[in-house]
Amino acid sequence: MTFPETELNKVKRIPDRALYDKETIYPIIDEALICHVGFTENDQPFVIPALHARDGDTLILHGAKASRMMQHIGDGSPVCIAITHVDGIVFARSVFHHSINYRSAVIFGHGKLIKKEDEKMRALEMLTEHIAQGRWHDARLPNQKELAATSVVKIEIESATAKIRSGDPKDDKEDYDLPVWSGMLPIAPQYLSPLNDPTLAPGIAVPDYILNYTR
Amino acid sequence: MTFPETELNKVKRIPDRALYDKETIYPIIDEALICHVGFTENDQPFVIPALHARDGDTLILHGAKASRMMQHIGDGSPVCIAITHVDGIVFARSVFHHSINYRSAVIFGHGKLIKKEDEKMRALEMLTEHIAQGRWHDARLPNQKELAATSVVKIEIESATAKIRSGDPKDDKEDYDLPVWSGMLPIAPQYLSPLNDPTLAPGIAVPDYILNYTR
Repeated sequence: MTFPETELNKVKRIPDRALYDKETIYPIIDEALICHVGFTENDQPFVIPALHARDGDTLILHGAKASRMMQHIGDGSPVCIAITHVDGIVFARSVFHHSINYRSAVIFGHGKLIKKEDEKMRALEMLTEHIAQGRWHDARLPNQKELAATSVVKIEIESATAKIRSGDPKDDKEDYDLPVWSGMLPIAPQYLSPLNDPTLAPGIAVPDYILNYTR
Repeated sequence: MTFPETELNKVKRIPDRALYDKETIYPIIDEALICHVGFTENDQPFVIPALHARDGDTLILHGAKASRMMQHIGDGSPVCIAITHVDGIVFARSVFHHSINYRSAVIFGHGKLIKKEDEKMRALEMLTEHIAQGRWHDARLPNQKELAATSVVKIEIESATAKIRSGDPKDDKEDYDLPVWSGMLPIAPQYLSPLNDPTLAPGIAVPDYILNYTR
C-alpha cells in the first residue's frame, strides 16, 4: 500500500529519493530504537526524542503523565514524527556533492490518548518488545500504580514518506581528474558487551536477546 | 553561561536530568553528525533530518533553495532543533524502569537567511568541517553556480536544554530479588572501513581524518 502524495508528505527536493509505500517506510520505523516527535503549541514548534513502537498502521508513544509532549499529543493536535538512520558519509571531490547516506521516514498523524487499561497494557507490551523482543515475558509487568503514572498515546499513520540515499558519491565529470579522495565512510550502530547491574544477584545470565542484540 | 529556564525550555519530566549550561549543551551539538529540525507551517508541525554546524551561539543549516525547510526557516519563523545521542539501553527488572541512556539537546531560535556571499562561504566551510575536520582544505570549493543553488540559514541559539541519562537501572528495592537480568547494553556509532569511489584514480590515499574518523 502506498500513501498518496499530498502537500503534507510530498518531497520537493530530490524527489527521486522519495518513496511513499509502506513496504519501504515501515521497516525504517521498526529498525529505529527512537524517533523525534514534533508538535506545535501556540505556534511554537517542539521536537522531543522518544521511544516508539508500531502496531500496524499506528505508532505508539508513552511518557509520564506530567510530560508536555504526552499532554499535548493526547489532546489530538497534529504530530510529525521523524526517524533517521545514518548509514554513512559520502565524500565527493567537490564540497557541493558531499552527502549523507541515510534512510529516513517522516510520519504525519494525530494523537489519541489510550484510556482502556487492557489496550494500555498491550501498547506497553509493544513498546517493551520494540526495545528487545522477549523482554515483556521476562520482566516484572507494570502494576496499577505504574500504569496510572504512565500516559500512552496512539497516532494513526495518516501520511508518510521515506527518503533514502545510498551508494557512492556523484561527482561532476569535470572533477574526476582532481587529486581528491572520494568515497563513502559507512556508519553502523554497534552494540557492545552488556554490563551487569551492580546489584544483580549471582547466577543470573544475560538473556540471548540482549547478548546477541540486533535491530 | 547558562540559558534561563523559561516555559520554552524548562524540562517538566524528571527535571534532575535537565541541564541548561552551554558547557553541557554545546558538546552534544558538536558531536552529532545530524539534527532533527522542527518548524510549523499553517499549524502543521514538520520534522526533517538535517546536517548542522555550530558557529559560537549560532546553528547553521543548509539545503537546496527548493526545499520546504529552507524557505520556511529563512523567513524567520520559530525553529526547534533536537539532537540525540543514544548511549545504551537500560534493562531493569521491572518493565516500568526500563530506560534509554542518552544525551539530548533541544534548541530554540529563529532562522535568518545568509545572503552575503563571503558569509555563505564561511558557513559552508563550517558545515564541511563539521562533517570531517580538514575536508574543506582538500575538496574542490563551491563555485558561483553551486553557491546560487544552495540556501544557508543561521539560527541564533536563543534558548536550549540538555537532558542526560547515564548509568545503571534504578529498580525498586522490592524487585531486587526477582530472577530477572538487569543491566545496560551500551550502544555507540561504529565507523567502518572507508570504501573508495569506483571511479577513484589509482594512487589517491584515504585521508587520515577519514581513516581515523571519530566524533
